[in-house]
Amino acid sequence: MDHGYRGSSDVVATYRLRERKDKLEARAEGIAVGLTIGTWTDLPAARKSEVAKHCGRVEGIRVLEEAALGEVVAEIDIAYPVANLNGTFASLLVTVFGKLSMDGEIRLERLQLPDELVRQFPGPKFGVQGVRDRLGAHNRPLVMSIFKACAGLTLEELVEAFAEQAEGGVDLVKDDEIFFTEAYATPEERVRAYAAKADEIAERTGRKTAYAVNLTGPVHSLRDRARRLAEQGAGALLVNVVAYGYDVVADLARDAEVHVPILAHPAVSGALYGSPNYGIAADIVLGQLMRLAGADIGIFPSMYGSVTLGQAATERLLAHLRADGPHKPVLPAPSAGIYPGLVPRLYQDLGVDLVLNAGGGIHGHPGGARMGGRAFFDAIWAVERGLPLAEAAKDRPALRQALEKWGMPS
Amino acid sequence: MDHGYRGSSDVVATYRLRERKDKLEARAEGIAVGLTIGTWTDLPAARKSEVAKHCGRVEGIRVLEEAALGEVVAEIDIAYPVANLNGTFASLLVTVFGKLSMDGEIRLERLQLPDELVRQFPGPKFGVQGVRDRLGAHNRPLVMSIFKACAGLTLEELVEAFAEQAEGGVDLVKDDEIFFTEAYATPEERVRAYAAKADEIAERTGRKTAYAVNLTGPVHSLRDRARRLAEQGAGALLVNVVAYGYDVVADLARDAEVHVPILAHPAVSGALYGSPNYGIAADIVLGQLMRLAGADIGIFPSMYGSVTLGQAATERLLAHLRADGPHKPVLPAPSAGIYPGLVPRLYQDLGVDLVLNAGGGIHGHPGGARMGGRAFFDAIWAVERGLPLAEAAKDRPALRQALEKWGMPS
Repeated sequence: MDHGYRGSSDVVATYRLRERKDKLEARAEGIAVGLTIGTWTDLPAARKSEVAKHCGRVEGIRVLEEAALGEVVAEIDIAYPVANLNGTFASLLVTVFGKLSMDGEIRLERLQLPDELVRQFPGPKFGVQGVRDRLGAHNRPLVMSIFKACAGLTLEELVEAFAEQAEGGVDLVKDDEIFFTEAYATPEERVRAYAAKADEIAERTGRKTAYAVNLTGPVHSLRDRARRLAEQGAGALLVNVVAYGYDVVADLARDAEVHVPILAHPAVSGALYGSPNYGIAADIVLGQLMRLAGADIGIFPSMYGSVTLGQAATERLLAHLRADGPHKPVLPAPSAGIYPGLVPRLYQDLGVDLVLNAGGGIHGHPGGARMGGRAFFDAIWAVERGLPLAEAAKDRPALRQALEKWGMPS
Repeated sequence: MDHGYRGSSDVVATYRLRERKDKLEARAEGIAVGLTIGTWTDLPAARKSEVAKHCGRVEGIRVLEEAALGEVVAEIDIAYPVANLNGTFASLLVTVFGKLSMDGEIRLERLQLPDELVRQFPGPKFGVQGVRDRLGAHNRPLVMSIFKACAGLTLEELVEAFAEQAEGGVDLVKDDEIFFTEAYATPEERVRAYAAKADEIAERTGRKTAYAVNLTGPVHSLRDRARRLAEQGAGALLVNVVAYGYDVVADLARDAEVHVPILAHPAVSGALYGSPNYGIAADIVLGQLMRLAGADIGIFPSMYGSVTLGQAATERLLAHLRADGPHKPVLPAPSAGIYPGLVPRLYQDLGVDLVLNAGGGIHGHPGGARMGGRAFFDAIWAVERGLPLAEAAKDRPALRQALEKWGMPS
C-alpha cells in the first residue's frame, strides 16, 4: 500500500473529474501550468530556467468511464513543486485545490507528499506511544467516554457527571465537541475540578481518568489557553480541526509548552468529503492532514455506525494515521455506534492500537455510565484471554447487562 | 429579500436532506435536541428549566420532492440558541454543521443569524466607503489587476511587472493567491518595493496603485505580519480565508493595528459548495461568513466566466455582502472572465459598488498590462457618460484594441 509519502520533491495530487474527452489533455496541462507559473509560452527565454523549478507537470491521465455528450470521468495526476509552498496548510490546500475546487465537477482524491514537505509540518507530539505513556495504558485499546448533555449544568453537576464516568475506569472523558458555552464554568474551571475529582477517585480505585477539554475561543487566544489548560491538568485537548483550520492546530502542535495530546474531532469534515464528485476525500481530510497537523488521536466515523466512510476509505484513512514516515503514528478513534459487544470485532479490524470511543454505548448502559465504562474493560479482559464475551459475562455484571441490551454485532 | 438577519436570539439553519418520509419528523427532532442538549427525556426535572435555554427547536419541515424507496428530499429549519455559541466561527459551524455534515446526504442551505450574534463577529473594518476613501476612488467601480506568474521572478523583475500594471492606473494590484514562496523576495520586501514604485509612478501620472499582498505564514505569525505589512504600505491583505479558517481572519479584522483592508480570496471554497447535495451553499461560504469575518472586498466566481454560481446563488451572495445590518457592506469582486467589454453589463448587474478584477483581461491586452488597465478606465469613462463602448473606443486606443480582441458580451 502506498502511504502517500514519496521521495521526490513534488506534491502529486490526483483528481477525479468530468471533462470533454477531447479536452482532457489540455485541461490537465492547464491545471499543471495555470496553477503554478500561470503561463509558459509568454515567458522571456531568460526567465525560463528559474521559472521551470516552479512549474507543475501532468503525471498521468486515466479515463475511468465514458459519460454523456462526449464527456468522460477521468483521474489525472498533477505534480506541484514543493518550492511553491511554505510549510503551511494554506499553501498546500490553495496550491492543489484552491481555484481548482471551484472549477466544476472535480474531487481531490489523493495527495502524495514528499518527506521533505512532510517534515515541514509538525506531526503528532505524542503519537500512539506517547499517549499510552501519559495515560499509563499499554497493550490494550484505550476507553474514552463522550461527555454528553453538558449545556445548562452547573460546575457541581458537571463534576458529578464526570465522576460517574471516571468511576467506570475509562482512560479519557472527552467533552462533546458542541460544548462552547462558558456561562456555567470555564474550561479552566472544568479542568481543575475534574482533575481533583479524578485524583480522589484514583486514590480509591487506582485508575486515573484524564479529561479531554474542548479547546475554544478566538484563535489568538488558543495557544495561551492550551498552555494554561495543559498546566492545570488537562489530559488532552479536543480540537475542532476542520472548523478552526489545520494551520491553527499545527501551531499548537509546534508549541513545546502545549505539552498535552491533541484529540482531533471531525466536525464539519463531511462538508468537504460528503459528495463522491466534489470536495476532498475523507482519508485526506481525516487521516493524512490530521496527522500532519499534529493530531495524537483522530476521531472518524466508524465502520459500525449508521453512516460510515466505507471499507476502502476507512483503510486508506487508517494507513495515513499509522504508516511509516517522518511523523509519529496517530491513535485511531472510530466513533459512532461503538458498544461493548463490538470489542472483539474492533480488535480484529483495527488491532490493539485504538481508542474505544463511546457516548450512548457508555451512558446508555442500564447501570449508568459507571457500569458502561466497566463493560468495555470487561470486554477487553475477555478478548485478551481469548474468551467469548458471553462466557466472560457470566460473572461480570457490567458486561452481561451490556450484552443483554446491545448484543453482539451480526 | 430576507438578508439572513433576525431579531430573535436563535440561529436558524435550513438544511436540504434526503430521508425516509416516515422518519423525517424524528430526524428533525433528533437534530434539534441531539445537537444541542443531547437528550431531553433523561433529564431530572430540576435541570429542565436551565437546560431548556440551550435546546434546539424544529422550526419547519417542507418536503421538496418524492424520491425512490419511500424517501423524500426535504428542507428542514432548526433553531439553535445563541447561548450555545461563543462568538467564534468554530462554535457556529460545529453547532449547525458539525456532526451533521457527516450524516449522509445533507446540505446547509441557509443560516439566519440574530443581530445579537452578528455583533459578536467583527465584520469589515473599512467596508465599501472605507476602501474607497483609502484608495481615493469614488463613484465608480474599482479596477484591480491580478499579478500572475510571479514564481521564479527576482524582486527587480517583480517590480518591473508591477510597474507595468500600475502604469495602467489600476487601483489595486493583487497577488496571485498561489504566491507563497519567499525564496526571491519576502512579502515585506515586495510591499516596500512596490510602494516605492507606485509613488514614483503617481508623481508622474497622479494615480497611485495600491498593492494587495498575499498574507502567508504560520497562523501565530499572521497578526504581526499583517501589522508590519500595513505599516510598510500594503494597500490590502489578500487572505485565503477558507484555507486558513474564518476565525483566523476574524482575529485580523478585530485587531485595530491591522489597519488595512482585507481582500478575501475564495480558494478551496468549491470543496464546500460544489455539490448540490452536500456541503454548504456558496452564498454562505463566500458571502455571509466572509462579511462576518471581516472581508472588505470579497472575490467570488463571476456570472460571466466558464464556471459560475448561477443567478440565484449569486444574488443571495450579493445580498449577504450588501444588506443592511450591524456590519459595514463588502465590495464584491466578481472574478474570472472579466474584460473591458463587460463593463456596461457589470454596471447594470451590480451597480457602481464593485471591483473589476481581471487577470487575462488586463495582461492579455495586445498593448500589455498597461493598456489593459487603461481599457477598463476607458470603459468606465464611457459608461459614466452613457456612451456605447464602440463609440468611446474611436479615440481611445486601449479600449479599441480590447474590443477588437475580446468584443462585447453576447
